[in-house]
Amino acid sequence: MKMYGNWRSAASFRVRAALNLKGIAYEEVFLDLDAGDHRKPEFLAINPQGAVPALFVDDGPPLTQSLAILDYLEETHPETPLLPADPRDRARARSLAQLIACDTHPLYTPRVRKHLMKAYDLSKEQGLEFLHFAFASGLETLEKRLSTEAGTGRFTQGDAVSHADLCLASLWAGTGIFGVDTAPYPTVKRVAEACLALDAVARAHPLKQPGAPAS
Amino acid sequence: MKMYGNWRSAASFRVRAALNLKGIAYEEVFLDLDAGDHRKPEFLAINPQGAVPALFVDDGPPLTQSLAILDYLEETHPETPLLPADPRDRARARSLAQLIACDTHPLYTPRVRKHLMKAYDLSKEQGLEFLHFAFASGLETLEKRLSTEAGTGRFTQGDAVSHADLCLASLWAGTGIFGVDTAPYPTVKRVAEACLALDAVARAHPLKQPGAPAS
Repeated sequence: MKMYGNWRSAASFRVRAALNLKGIAYEEVFLDLDAGDHRKPEFLAINPQGAVPALFVDDGPPLTQSLAILDYLEETHPETPLLPADPRDRARARSLAQLIACDTHPLYTPRVRKHLMKAYDLSKEQGLEFLHFAFASGLETLEKRLSTEAGTGRFTQGDAVSHADLCLASLWAGTGIFGVDTAPYPTVKRVAEACLALDAVARAHPLKQPGAPAS
Repeated sequence: MKMYGNWRSAASFRVRAALNLKGIAYEEVFLDLDAGDHRKPEFLAINPQGAVPALFVDDGPPLTQSLAILDYLEETHPETPLLPADPRDRARARSLAQLIACDTHPLYTPRVRKHLMKAYDLSKEQGLEFLHFAFASGLETLEKRLSTEAGTGRFTQGDAVSHADLCLASLWAGTGIFGVDTAPYPTVKRVAEACLALDAVARAHPLKQPGAPAS
């Protein structure tokens, strides 16, 4: 398989980690988002949304949207399952994944912060404050849910890693990159660190990819 | 089943439409979001995120996050399928659903607009401008994809209604509620209207629910 991604992209991290966990061979083309690679005609022909990841799985058009790709990999490579077998447990894992991938991550993407700064004349600091608002609102709900719901185990849902953990790991990696205060979220920290400690996930970490800063 | 929802909520609309399409009996408790029902302790005990929909499917805790609920309904009530059988087609339907449910809808929710207005002293008009930015960026990508990708048929993916159409219908209903200019999106309009014309979807429409304005 061939993936178009970026070191900093949380969504690319999720897919990269799933490919590693399932032992699927792939190569990754790393776009330079700061240089606007994702807005160039060559990439817009691949994904009109101008977003990574885009994953070529055959000679057809690429797959896009990280959770859709994770489900495709689950359906076509069921070995090393990344969703629980029970429908209720799957629904909880998916709910937690979407709390991150729908309600948290899209808010702090560069396209949104850039629009806010330009349209409302916000400072860079205010753009960063909005990012912290997005992280904090997601992390607060995650802490409440993971610390009180019976489904939480070693990982987000029980004791096996799932899509929810990949989303959580991508969010947690972001707290480091963007300097988000993580002290109020001890349960999130424990679960995220359990996922990030897996070799397949550690190798997929943003800071281990080409283009990432040295520290 | 028992669902907590709201007339205006795009996510509630998606789940309500799926329940209708699959012929699953349910009752709905309509929260008044303007009165802050979703922030009251009684509802936070149901969903700590303070978001609708929340769906009770048995005596256990409720399911949350609309796409996770749609997948649960698909797995437990496979009659009247709302996802294609082929994994690639499923991935495309899910990608289009997530383009709406992850990258578009969360941006224009009241919680985000309220934060923007309060934190950056934006006017109500600027809050509404941000909503229009969110709609336009989603609709532009949808128009590009639906008008050029081979998978588009009578519906978003082929000729059978899927999760992507329910997300599209919820977005399209929002263009009416919020006065979004839809002229630049003729393909989106055709597909959304095909979905909204289905009786099960029409009955689930926001403006048909208790609490909705008369027009």
